[in-house]
Amino acid sequence: MAQPLLIARLIETLRCLPGVGPKSAQRMAYHLLERNREGGRRLAQALLDAMERIHHCVSCRTLTESELCELCAAPNRDRSQLCIVETPADVQALQQATGFQGLYYVLMGHLSPLDGIGPAELGLERLAARFDTGEIKEIILATNATTEGEATAHYISEMARARGIHATRIAHGVPLGSELEFIDSGTLAHAFAGRREI
Amino acid sequence: MAQPLLIARLIETLRCLPGVGPKSAQRMAYHLLERNREGGRRLAQALLDAMERIHHCVSCRTLTESELCELCAAPNRDRSQLCIVETPADVQALQQATGFQGLYYVLMGHLSPLDGIGPAELGLERLAARFDTGEIKEIILATNATTEGEATAHYISEMARARGIHATRIAHGVPLGSELEFIDSGTLAHAFAGRREI
Repeated sequence: MAQPLLIARLIETLRCLPGVGPKSAQRMAYHLLERNREGGRRLAQALLDAMERIHHCVSCRTLTESELCELCAAPNRDRSQLCIVETPADVQALQQATGFQGLYYVLMGHLSPLDGIGPAELGLERLAARFDTGEIKEIILATNATTEGEATAHYISEMARARGIHATRIAHGVPLGSELEFIDSGTLAHAFAGRREI
Repeated sequence: MAQPLLIARLIETLRCLPGVGPKSAQRMAYHLLERNREGGRRLAQALLDAMERIHHCVSCRTLTESELCELCAAPNRDRSQLCIVETPADVQALQQATGFQGLYYVLMGHLSPLDGIGPAELGLERLAARFDTGEIKEIILATNATTEGEATAHYISEMARARGIHATRIAHGVPLGSELEFIDSGTLAHAFAGRREI
């Protein structure tokens, strides 16, 4: 067909972005070509820079430009508390939402035996080695509230318990601002069972 | 905050894509960094190539890698029919949907006096010069069915009429497969008024 090869290739490669199907990829390609070539060039450069220069923090495994991420390198954080999350984006979300002053550890995924991801594949021996340093007094399990996230939290809490480390899990229940009528029954049952004194 | 500068910049530049807000941009950036760096590199290269090497066909103004686009360069097309559209994507859509064998002319926009886009800004004198060659017998106005698209089609049809060129407009009405109940009243009124013998 009449579509130039370079446009076809741009549309095809745009589909590697999550949530972008053929129609949106085409719309994006034509938008950049017709209206924002400078933006397209800037995006290409930002992609190249990030793909080359972002790697994992040697301590917490989050994404960073340096050897140690900003949080791990900060001298004033509480090294006795370790918050364990699934992804770097979760670190961002928690940092923005909470006043947590401890350190993070990013699993870069979760246990998922059906996909062949067990403790070894997730690199949990590194986390165990970190537990063994004796520096950590409490771990806060902030994995997702999914089946895999729950299983991962449970597994890591057992690892911590075996080493005498206090393990906590972030609370689950009805999100703030929501109406009970529209909450799924699983969440509602969990919130009811986990009721607390006021 | 703890977000590395390069990631923040990637998220910011991803927002130049249409339909991408802060949340999806963040999701895209982390997806590429965590799961598909090779895809990110390929996307960067495809963007650079397209932004540098795609320009407008000297004849029909669609986007192309060469001086003349594939359709204008093809020897076997009917040069007496000219289909006038707003964007290069419209050429694609018509080529895929119809058996049209003539040539196209891409306006790269539409008349929009409120935005300061009049006949001069849209470069309609180039189209008039094309009409004046005497090669064209019929123009098919396939601008969008919007107020601006209609106004543009009307203006160009007057240009054609003044030169004795036959001007047609693509049909508007109820889209195939749709139920009358759910069609907007403007379309329905248009379809009713434009009824044809069966």
